[in-house]
Amino acid sequence: MSILTRPILEINLNNLLSNYKQLSDLAKNSIAAAVVKDNAYGLGAEEVSALLYKEAKCRHFFVAHAVEGEKIAHNLPQAKIFVLQGIGSDSLDVFERVPQLVPVISSPQMFDFWKEHRLDGRKPVIHIETGLNRLGFREADLQKLSDDDIKEFGMVMSHLACGDEKDHFMNAHQLETFEQLKNIYFAEIPGSLSASDGVFLGDKFQWNLVRLGAAMYGINTAPYRKNQMQNVVKIKAPVLQIANLPKGDFVGYSATYRASSERKIAIVSIGYGDGLPRSLSNVGKVFFKVRGQLIECRVIGRMSMDNMICDVTEADGLEVGDWAYIADDFYTLDDVARDAGTISYEIMSRVGKNPRYDRIYIGK
Amino acid sequence: MSILTRPILEINLNNLLSNYKQLSDLAKNSIAAAVVKDNAYGLGAEEVSALLYKEAKCRHFFVAHAVEGEKIAHNLPQAKIFVLQGIGSDSLDVFERVPQLVPVISSPQMFDFWKEHRLDGRKPVIHIETGLNRLGFREADLQKLSDDDIKEFGMVMSHLACGDEKDHFMNAHQLETFEQLKNIYFAEIPGSLSASDGVFLGDKFQWNLVRLGAAMYGINTAPYRKNQMQNVVKIKAPVLQIANLPKGDFVGYSATYRASSERKIAIVSIGYGDGLPRSLSNVGKVFFKVRGQLIECRVIGRMSMDNMICDVTEADGLEVGDWAYIADDFYTLDDVARDAGTISYEIMSRVGKNPRYDRIYIGK
Repeated sequence: MSILTRPILEINLNNLLSNYKQLSDLAKNSIAAAVVKDNAYGLGAEEVSALLYKEAKCRHFFVAHAVEGEKIAHNLPQAKIFVLQGIGSDSLDVFERVPQLVPVISSPQMFDFWKEHRLDGRKPVIHIETGLNRLGFREADLQKLSDDDIKEFGMVMSHLACGDEKDHFMNAHQLETFEQLKNIYFAEIPGSLSASDGVFLGDKFQWNLVRLGAAMYGINTAPYRKNQMQNVVKIKAPVLQIANLPKGDFVGYSATYRASSERKIAIVSIGYGDGLPRSLSNVGKVFFKVRGQLIECRVIGRMSMDNMICDVTEADGLEVGDWAYIADDFYTLDDVARDAGTISYEIMSRVGKNPRYDRIYIGK
Repeated sequence: MSILTRPILEINLNNLLSNYKQLSDLAKNSIAAAVVKDNAYGLGAEEVSALLYKEAKCRHFFVAHAVEGEKIAHNLPQAKIFVLQGIGSDSLDVFERVPQLVPVISSPQMFDFWKEHRLDGRKPVIHIETGLNRLGFREADLQKLSDDDIKEFGMVMSHLACGDEKDHFMNAHQLETFEQLKNIYFAEIPGSLSASDGVFLGDKFQWNLVRLGAAMYGINTAPYRKNQMQNVVKIKAPVLQIANLPKGDFVGYSATYRASSERKIAIVSIGYGDGLPRSLSNVGKVFFKVRGQLIECRVIGRMSMDNMICDVTEADGLEVGDWAYIADDFYTLDDVARDAGTISYEIMSRVGKNPRYDRIYIGK
């Protein structure tokens, strides 16, 4: 028996690299850019971007904020780092310091700002709206651009709303809109329409540059079929204590669980403070290995900040210091997210930022 | 008009200090320890602990993990930093390096580990179970302790399950159990039963040391009455773009919102990647100031990682670069959490860790 207290986050860089290569092959006529925003979906933007730069010759990266780009730029001397949230008075100094940063301009007002503060040698990306109704120039905005305005831009991009649903009518609609607007206004420059999910929709969606994010991190962005990607993230946490739960006893905050028979419980050293969704309370699944066999158990009671409690009555022989497997190859973050009523992107982004994990990179 | 891209997290240390003092006064016969685990509920453990040490002479702190204690110890030379998850082979070296750390021992197995690796000059806390059915020695475990074992400990603690419900039967039950077990096994040493919520339950619950966390950070831990604490956290994010949404158009991923009439929308530069719960999709409230007046608006469509979209039809005169107020004195994180179907603890812990915020400490 060992006494352990810390959860472990394992990030498999070999699998991440293999996913990147598989996706690049699928979009072999396009540049394969890597989306490393939000600290590479929480998995470590420095580690991920340095790996792709070195091992896969990736030279195009996307972040959300300029400050995120600044953190990784030192490892990526020859790269372009596109900044999706664009440029403003609270990020101009960062753009001035970091020559690799290229703003994505998403509104006429931001474009006016750009023209006032233009940075030599950089051609921004223009983001156009094709159906997501999020960021981007609407057609009325495009009509107001002069020929000189249009020459400012080095690429045109848009983003799919429903790319993870193969036959959703929005996909064809957005593709057609993008093609039309590009032909009218930006025929001369490269275009980018798709993130990971769009890559799986076929050649027509891939254009000149694809933005690989979620699928590279192992998320199934084509949930209409079995995940083709390799799993990247594993989470486990040690059992701090095992106890008998007498019939009639309550468990956790607000006493939301009551034992209808005598049970055995394990207190596991991980909670919502470690980025797991609190909505796993009373519904989450956790796996334990006993004599080489995986036993599926359930979270009972409310998850707390640092701990959660599992009913391990069926895991006979479980000991203090054994591991509780929360996400793994056999039960991925996509599965955990489904149990929690959210998407794995959200969990990944929360888990990954957390300094309490003992963080292990495989293949670094 | 200004062009801004980054969300702002404002942490009011003056209010935090005032909350700490108000709570200390309420428990004036007890030591007022500060709970700064999980990076001070996300608000910055270094900033918060240094402030309380210097300005309020706080000398007792609680963290969850030894690594968390190590990060703050350099500012707290004369303090005791109690480690709730205790000590194990993955944290022993940290305890050896940092003399202020004191483990909380929560199981017989961890106690065996302690006796093998005892650190001179430190008397650990024993955590006993009184009804939460989480960590702690059960009575059967206590019966096996020898007199010498009992002398190892410097304090006995337990934790309430339902302290935020004034008349919940569990409170009286846990108080009675704690009192009994303390009298039998630990009559000679100080006791600690209550966190913030227990402080409000009256003198009997306060014992020798109270563990002030949530209420100090402004969370209402006595929701059966108006919050007595001052607000500590504000979150705002800039409007990146304002656009017309034609009747019949869809908004956001998976097209979950459709405009039944022409609307005006604002794209706000904050999303679940910034720690807001994605469950605010289509339900969250956001406030805008137009000509000095606050206008309540709603999140429409799915929240994305970096952005959310609000229906600002009613906020006539709103401009790009104006602020979207997400949490403030007039609409606190408790309110946001209710809309999201969770508790403010979870949001705070997620928001606070995020490096994308421009983080402002008031009163530092």
